Amino acid sequence: MGTQGGTGPEAASAAGAEAMVILEHARAAVDPALRAAVDSLPGAMRRIACYHFGWEHADGTPAAGNAGKAMRPALVLTAAAALGGPAARAAAVRAAAAVELVHNFTLLHDDVMDRDTTRRHRSTAWSVFGVPDAILAGDALQALALGMLAEDPHPGARAAVSRLAACVVELCEGQQVDTALEARAPAEVTLDEVLAMAEAKTGALIGCACAIGALYAGASDEDVDALDAFGREAGLAFQLIDDVIGIWGDPRHTGKPAGADLAARKKSLPVVAALASGTAAAGELAELYAAPYAPADLDRTVLAVEQAGGREWAQDQAADRMSRAMDELARAIPDPESAGGLLSLAEFVTRRTA
Amino acid sequence: MGTQGGTGPEAASAAGAEAMVILEHARAAVDPALRAAVDSLPGAMRRIACYHFGWEHADGTPAAGNAGKAMRPALVLTAAAALGGPAARAAAVRAAAAVELVHNFTLLHDDVMDRDTTRRHRSTAWSVFGVPDAILAGDALQALALGMLAEDPHPGARAAVSRLAACVVELCEGQQVDTALEARAPAEVTLDEVLAMAEAKTGALIGCACAIGALYAGASDEDVDALDAFGREAGLAFQLIDDVIGIWGDPRHTGKPAGADLAARKKSLPVVAALASGTAAAGELAELYAAPYAPADLDRTVLAVEQAGGREWAQDQAADRMSRAMDELARAIPDPESAGGLLSLAEFVTRRTA
Repeated sequence: MGTQGGTGPEAASAAGAEAMVILEHARAAVDPALRAAVDSLPGAMRRIACYHFGWEHADGTPAAGNAGKAMRPALVLTAAAALGGPAARAAAVRAAAAVELVHNFTLLHDDVMDRDTTRRHRSTAWSVFGVPDAILAGDALQALALGMLAEDPHPGARAAVSRLAACVVELCEGQQVDTALEARAPAEVTLDEVLAMAEAKTGALIGCACAIGALYAGASDEDVDALDAFGREAGLAFQLIDDVIGIWGDPRHTGKPAGADLAARKKSLPVVAALASGTAAAGELAELYAAPYAPADLDRTVLAVEQAGGREWAQDQAADRMSRAMDELARAIPDPESAGGLLSLAEFVTRRTA
Repeated sequence: MGTQGGTGPEAASAAGAEAMVILEHARAAVDPALRAAVDSLPGAMRRIACYHFGWEHADGTPAAGNAGKAMRPALVLTAAAALGGPAARAAAVRAAAAVELVHNFTLLHDDVMDRDTTRRHRSTAWSVFGVPDAILAGDALQALALGMLAEDPHPGARAAVSRLAACVVELCEGQQVDTALEARAPAEVTLDEVLAMAEAKTGALIGCACAIGALYAGASDEDVDALDAFGREAGLAFQLIDDVIGIWGDPRHTGKPAGADLAARKKSLPVVAALASGTAAAGELAELYAAPYAPADLDRTVLAVEQAGGREWAQDQAADRMSRAMDELARAIPDPESAGGLLSLAEFVTRRTA
């Protein structure tokens, strides 16, 4: 990390400010295409999708809207601009909307499978409209995404549909492995397994977003693959930091109760690393995880993950992934100025503390 | 009906025999592409899909396989052949496999939503692998279908993906309306509503299959639309006959207990027509449907639907739809010999008694 950007806190803060601007611009560029696509859906599908995106209340009245950070569409546009300039960025707006539709289709279905009742501070779609409606709205968003990309006359569109469809298959397999791992005893889950699962569940779509941006810039196969690898590595770093925040993050910033991941006995990356460490703390953690959660045990559990090296491993691993991401990026875009936007986005999501 | 084919029982039987041959040939042509596509899926997604298609048992050992009639791929290939000859038929094999993948993705999800435990005489995928796995396998099949069609270099492929994606949206809306109608009081459901729902749920994909066949034959926009309309009308006739069989079919042939649709208080097309008839029998049927099902009432319920004109309406309506289907077909393919295969398939599915 920092081979192309600065490394001090000032540089991080500057990258953060730049990232916020990039995200805001991307949201402004993509929202009209996203809304037009969702508006093209028939009655119930449109209503459920508009609720999910935060554009409407459950009764169909307009809502202020909090459709998330739009990280993935921002990566599509920023990658297109980095490799092909403003024209490529402008041409990639539909593709960016398609990627965001795919992301949201998976959120709708994941919430059904995980029985999560809250997302973006609102009730999840299935908990408002019922499970069948949420499944169907997710199905419709996937079809909308791949269909609108296939209709795009841009020469990069065909390869983009192909990549996005393959990415959906990988996301599905990742989610399936995740639910299967959750059902297994902690000691029977290996670090390689959770890393592979996290790459499929989180890295794949972030990599795909960057690759699609490259395709819309007319980049070579090698550069498209390098952008995919950049996104995958940065995505995995993002997930590692997310897992660290899930244990040590400040509840006032995360919006989740302290230790929620540990209370749910989640096999997050730092926990599996701690369990696999062969330390005395690993044994204590295994014992704690084998028993039902008791609030009085939370501090001991947090400490055991730390003492077993889970936090340090995750932070080192995140730095290592970010360094690999930078190498891939430098391979495709040697000019630091052109790569600046992608660097800022990658640093922004992996340096945050909540 | 019968404007281009024969009308007597011998003609029907000849059409039936020809249809069986067409279906068998289509299955043989499409199965390798279908299996290759499913085999390309990663671990769990592949396993669940192979189980669903009847190719494997739940433990992964090979099964004899009963993957259904393959009506939709047969329509793709037969429409392509009718408008473009053997070369178009051969070129459309991947597209036919994609349509069959979409059909099966909807079956996987419909079974989850309807909590159906049996399909093709086997336990449904969700009842074997769990709801999350069945949702994910359906998602993966949709992505596989649209992705493999988008990758097809054939000049008709882009419009085909666009049609197939739009069709998925329509199928989703149709299934949503179906579940919404089931929750409403029978007297509050109109005939127009159930007809529109049946067109979206059943007609849309059959029409799309025919339209995609036409696209792969390089047909004009008008002919593609006519083939779509042919399939939609024939699909609605199919659904009407299916609903008649659901009430008056011989349980020895249907494989379902007598009156299963009535016992489940389904708002099938003949039932809604009967309820809307304004006859004395309609009043009796409404009373019966308002009460919980009792086996002793079955005969009276069947009779009430018949006396209220539900059976006759459905049969007349099916004949009317078939006649419109024939008109659309004749518009695109005036030569009866070229249209013969599509006629046989349409007559086969609407003349069957089980």
